[in-house]
Amino acid sequence: MELPYNFRDPSLAALALTHRSAGKPNNERMEFLGDALLGAIVAEMLYETHPKAAEGEMSRLRAQLVNGQALATVARELELGDSLKLGSGELKSGGFRRDSILADAFEALVAAVYLDGGFEACRTVVRTLFTDRVAALPHSSKDAKTRLQEWLQAQGQPLPHYELVSTEGEEHARVFEVNCVIAEPMAVTAAGRGSSRRLAEQDAAEVVLARLVGVQEGS
Amino acid sequence: MELPYNFRDPSLAALALTHRSAGKPNNERMEFLGDALLGAIVAEMLYETHPKAAEGEMSRLRAQLVNGQALATVARELELGDSLKLGSGELKSGGFRRDSILADAFEALVAAVYLDGGFEACRTVVRTLFTDRVAALPHSSKDAKTRLQEWLQAQGQPLPHYELVSTEGEEHARVFEVNCVIAEPMAVTAAGRGSSRRLAEQDAAEVVLARLVGVQEGS
Repeated sequence: MELPYNFRDPSLAALALTHRSAGKPNNERMEFLGDALLGAIVAEMLYETHPKAAEGEMSRLRAQLVNGQALATVARELELGDSLKLGSGELKSGGFRRDSILADAFEALVAAVYLDGGFEACRTVVRTLFTDRVAALPHSSKDAKTRLQEWLQAQGQPLPHYELVSTEGEEHARVFEVNCVIAEPMAVTAAGRGSSRRLAEQDAAEVVLARLVGVQEGS
Repeated sequence: MELPYNFRDPSLAALALTHRSAGKPNNERMEFLGDALLGAIVAEMLYETHPKAAEGEMSRLRAQLVNGQALATVARELELGDSLKLGSGELKSGGFRRDSILADAFEALVAAVYLDGGFEACRTVVRTLFTDRVAALPHSSKDAKTRLQEWLQAQGQPLPHYELVSTEGEEHARVFEVNCVIAEPMAVTAAGRGSSRRLAEQDAAEVVLARLVGVQEGS
């Protein structure tokens, strides 16, 4: 498929497809801008389509959509490899097929659309390219306690237990605070709150998940 | 100072200022979206104001502008602490003064402006709040080789040397490829290219800087 956008200034598209091996100027600075724009537009898509997902879950889903391999797939669908400008070394070694080079070119192209046509044009292009991918994400129907339990089991870790810490407020607006506690060697404790003990436990499990899985993905 | 924006829907601003300790709904999901928007808008500001900065340098500068402490400072200038909605535990322990809570609330507020008024409104608010901060960034007038040398000296590491790898192309369009090599224990080699040997060396130093300093900041 073609990029769903017509450039007013084709030199911006050409620059976006110029790899650093071809000299300067090249697409590296545009890639920085495009990466940030793509992150924001995909964040908005997840914010809309996953109204119940916690921050940590949206963050994980976004990483699935915009990692280098995923973006290289988008770049291949757009056949960006054919239009890349590479130095002779990269040309010989088949750089136009490399995931990182393709992903960077796609990000740069997102910035080029922004610079050429503004935010709404850029947002439309990204949404067009990512709507099906967002829809295809695994919609976790499992609650946070279940996901946490499964994750800990897969890691061979002890299961969490939940402790009621306090109840506050009037009867009609009670707030329960619960700690989710994982024993040694993980030794994690996190608090959750909710209008029922069950909801507070789910909330605490979500916090632990974000912390544990976030840490793991970030490392 | 006040936030330079009037909300059509004040409930969005209220949600942005609701910390998770106050129960659900709270500002955590908005914070995810706001963080991404802020990153993109500040990226654009740096792209414009630092036309010669490489990707790695813009990335470092952005981190200076949008880290938790920097955003807490912005939040304090906007006196967000006075409007925060916190649970009673956080209220008692002075959560309205905590950097992380203030920074998160500011990010959520950026998202609230976006959801209320669209991208241009959000961009205007962020640019208004960050123009002076961007202008105050240390403008590095030092070239990449100098910055790399200084950085290595500060780390007590051996200094790099530069090796000409190849020259390609016709006389009028020569491309020089140079390796920047740092000895053990770092053992880093990176290639740079340019239309002169000097430019190729600068390019290689820039690549090494991005790799080394990027790695360090990310760890």
